[in-house]
Amino acid sequence: MKLFNNTIENIEEISIDSDGNIKDRFNNLAIPTGSLGRLEELATIYASIKGSPDATIKHKVVFTMAGDHGVSSEGVSVFPQEVTGQMVKNFIDGGATISVLARHIDARVVVVDCGVKTDFEPVDGLKIKKVGYGTDNIAQGPAMSKEQAVKSLEAGIESFNEELLNGIDIVATGDMGIANTTPSSAIIACLTGTELDKVTGRGTGLDDSGVEKKISVISMALDVNKPDPSDPIDVLSKVGGFEIGGIAGLCLAAASHRTPVLIDGFISTAAALIACAIEPKVNNYLISSHASTENGHNIALEKLQKKAILDLNLRLGEGTGAVLAMSLIEAGVKIMTQMATFSEAEVSTPYLKK
Amino acid sequence: MKLFNNTIENIEEISIDSDGNIKDRFNNLAIPTGSLGRLEELATIYASIKGSPDATIKHKVVFTMAGDHGVSSEGVSVFPQEVTGQMVKNFIDGGATISVLARHIDARVVVVDCGVKTDFEPVDGLKIKKVGYGTDNIAQGPAMSKEQAVKSLEAGIESFNEELLNGIDIVATGDMGIANTTPSSAIIACLTGTELDKVTGRGTGLDDSGVEKKISVISMALDVNKPDPSDPIDVLSKVGGFEIGGIAGLCLAAASHRTPVLIDGFISTAAALIACAIEPKVNNYLISSHASTENGHNIALEKLQKKAILDLNLRLGEGTGAVLAMSLIEAGVKIMTQMATFSEAEVSTPYLKK
Repeated sequence: MKLFNNTIENIEEISIDSDGNIKDRFNNLAIPTGSLGRLEELATIYASIKGSPDATIKHKVVFTMAGDHGVSSEGVSVFPQEVTGQMVKNFIDGGATISVLARHIDARVVVVDCGVKTDFEPVDGLKIKKVGYGTDNIAQGPAMSKEQAVKSLEAGIESFNEELLNGIDIVATGDMGIANTTPSSAIIACLTGTELDKVTGRGTGLDDSGVEKKISVISMALDVNKPDPSDPIDVLSKVGGFEIGGIAGLCLAAASHRTPVLIDGFISTAAALIACAIEPKVNNYLISSHASTENGHNIALEKLQKKAILDLNLRLGEGTGAVLAMSLIEAGVKIMTQMATFSEAEVSTPYLKK
Repeated sequence: MKLFNNTIENIEEISIDSDGNIKDRFNNLAIPTGSLGRLEELATIYASIKGSPDATIKHKVVFTMAGDHGVSSEGVSVFPQEVTGQMVKNFIDGGATISVLARHIDARVVVVDCGVKTDFEPVDGLKIKKVGYGTDNIAQGPAMSKEQAVKSLEAGIESFNEELLNGIDIVATGDMGIANTTPSSAIIACLTGTELDKVTGRGTGLDDSGVEKKISVISMALDVNKPDPSDPIDVLSKVGGFEIGGIAGLCLAAASHRTPVLIDGFISTAAALIACAIEPKVNNYLISSHASTENGHNIALEKLQKKAILDLNLRLGEGTGAVLAMSLIEAGVKIMTQMATFSEAEVSTPYLKK
């Protein structure tokens, strides 16, 4: 609890380019004003968080947080529960999508076991921060105790703080946990006050009847647990997940170290809602990476007042969308820091600027 | 004319994954079916063009084609004409946005002088394929002769064919030419049969009255020249540009060598319309990279039946959007060729697959 409280105390309020320095930088580059669109916007957010238009990106890190879910026994996923642990091994072996994409953009993958049912041998690239061996079935009672909820947040905080020693300039969130769209839908429904059919989707591939069943399971979970929307830790403990708490903790830790966070898709956005409910100052450190096809992702993004960078019909998780968007932020930052100005390049300015 | 004719004769009709091999490959990867969204779609297009799901990407090349426009004397741009030549130097010096972005994704920049008013010293990375010293003013007569139009197409073809010796797996198009949204709007209006106010935008930063004036200039150009929409070379010669012909030629040459082409924004899409009107088989080799904010880009994309990959409010040209999208195609291709299958990773398949 002490680590959790200290982290929150260290989160500073930031504003975006309050002195106009970053805008000036872009206006002097040898391009038409505003022609870079969102690349300028993203670089401006990055530089504002870092406090300088000279800020570069060297260390890119994606944290793929894994956890199991008792609710998988309700048949809310097309995959069996053991896949969570199998995929953790696949991440470590470098054969997963996130492994390929992280290599593509030269990012470091840190896999965190926040509460997978399987035990793992300690290896490089894997942090064991087990809060439990899978959550309990939320259709029958709380996912975890309040102490475990705080511990799951601290699992994310500890993971970030430890990795900081290896260098972190920007973070991408990622998730792995069979059935974890179910608790994510429950969290989003609870924290945004939305009906279940608008925030419940097909996950890894449910058909219509599967989605109906999933909605009834989430409905039971909310009825049985009655999570309090004004208490994010209550929501996390009652209908959340260990990796979801881990991702929320990661957001808090990154913000406390003035580090921008790229939020992946549906599960990561549910976790971001919890982080922002815990400490609203976190929101300015978060960037939405991609629009998931999962039903209701847009509702969670609206609540965070974010517009996703990419729309590629992804619904994979792991941090895949976040890592792709990270490369676009890096592109914007490189333009900001490497490009020639009108005078350096000896390019005539527009008539309007004369 | 011989090079032009030979190139067109060598363009094969391709279909996308006609034997289902590529779909099979993706369905065996250790991910939920279809969860990669457009990354799978893009990799499938790439592999179909290359003829194999094992096709990788090594040599990425962006061609930034430059030309000047007589119509700039009508005051249709906020930048003076000399900026075209100044920017060519900036490209060569590596200080432009495309320079930064090409380095970011590890692509080679080839700058082609298709008809800039300035003369350049021969240097590495610049091809001199001058068709003229800027086009004539389209508001008063044709931009160029029909012979010059063919020569501009061949400038693109020659540039591609020469660069092939250095390796090309995938191509991005780019443009530089002060005032070149004006001929591009004229081309799009003519080839799609759309009213001018729907395909004429602010270019590098015109205000409302500037756009009105631009529309009247384009209207004059179409009245004076009466380009024949059924004859793309007539359209190119009457209301086109040297770099626009160069980009169209590049598309033809790439298709003739089974090489995918990423079409940049407004100007490149106008050029792609010409290439597809010359030889409709080209269309399957083209991928739209980003949605430009320039008014009417969507109309040109609809005509090509393409959906842009990125929507970042860019309106810069140079090949900037195409290069960013190229990295996403590479991401999809790497997933296709590097990822572990369910059996390789020892990950359980979904219940539905059992």
